[in-house]
Amino acid sequence: MTNASGKSDNVRWHHGHVTRDDRRGLMKQSGCTIWFTGLPASGKSTIAFAVERLLFEAGHAAYVLDGDNIRHGLCGNLGFSADDRAENIRRIGEVARLFVDAGLITLASFVSPYRADRQLVRSLHESAGMSFIEVFVDTPVDACEARDPKGLYKQARAGEISQFTGVNDPYEPPDAAELVIHTVGAKVDDCARCVVELLGQRGVLGA
Amino acid sequence: MTNASGKSDNVRWHHGHVTRDDRRGLMKQSGCTIWFTGLPASGKSTIAFAVERLLFEAGHAAYVLDGDNIRHGLCGNLGFSADDRAENIRRIGEVARLFVDAGLITLASFVSPYRADRQLVRSLHESAGMSFIEVFVDTPVDACEARDPKGLYKQARAGEISQFTGVNDPYEPPDAAELVIHTVGAKVDDCARCVVELLGQRGVLGA
Repeated sequence: MTNASGKSDNVRWHHGHVTRDDRRGLMKQSGCTIWFTGLPASGKSTIAFAVERLLFEAGHAAYVLDGDNIRHGLCGNLGFSADDRAENIRRIGEVARLFVDAGLITLASFVSPYRADRQLVRSLHESAGMSFIEVFVDTPVDACEARDPKGLYKQARAGEISQFTGVNDPYEPPDAAELVIHTVGAKVDDCARCVVELLGQRGVLGA
Repeated sequence: MTNASGKSDNVRWHHGHVTRDDRRGLMKQSGCTIWFTGLPASGKSTIAFAVERLLFEAGHAAYVLDGDNIRHGLCGNLGFSADDRAENIRRIGEVARLFVDAGLITLASFVSPYRADRQLVRSLHESAGMSFIEVFVDTPVDACEARDPKGLYKQARAGEISQFTGVNDPYEPPDAAELVIHTVGAKVDDCARCVVELLGQRGVLGA
């Protein structure tokens, strides 16, 4: 079968793509990225997973991107220099954007110490009309160091880890995060509920 | 609040992670990757988007990864040398794996000319207990070249594009794809339905 131009028209576009609105209707939510930034051991991933659980219990599809599933895979060929950190965050930002395009609530939990890198990810989203919500998990370094669940601060202080944010590498706090969470003396579930409430206010939850 | 070790226990793990089974129950499907490989203009993306549409109409969450949303973003800093092609496919494979982990049916549409690169992506999935379904869109080069919707074969023949698969760069066909689609004389919808039927047979669709 050929068309007027003599080309086969057997393989061609028959349907419209599934749109963002289509996905919103199917999934009863708007894709968006919640970006958790803060020092190592500040509680970012703990809160992100608690948010994921709360959202799941409310019937929402969410997914946590964090060091465990990114640094061993997609970004396994990157180190911790400023350039590699920038490329790391850029790749994660691009992946988050794909997840949002697919309709998911994406919970990204990364130290992401540089303001410019986070700004790039925000721009990637906002230029595509996608919501980007920055959450600063504002835990003082002494509290992080007291927790130190993986013993990384201890190793960094002992000189066994170089370029460790908070010890021998800088952290630039956000100056206009959508939400700031103080974790000292707070319960994880309360922190997580603050995030879910914000999603509700922003119209993310619901068709 | 401190625990016996003297560490703050304010931020700690309270809930289990959302599991693959949890997601299957919520989304009424099992995450998996369908990997479409074939020459440029063989019909990969056209079929992938038709599958996405059929799945959407049946209430399933699927997402197409293809050159348009990958080469301009995540892999925008890669070229077309064998090394860069390998890194391109590796990154896409890692992203597909994250999508599958999140419970989505992931439709990856890439020339992916090298058998070893596709094998790596298969291994990434299968080593994590995830389904990987390779679909060879087996359109002869002369049919692809007759279609040539973007005029790329023409440019490659004119020497304006180097490393163009099928003209001046090799394509290694799969020797054990789960599905082979012959598009010449076939309708897109019929090709797409073959893929959806295979997903049904494999138990992907349903809780």
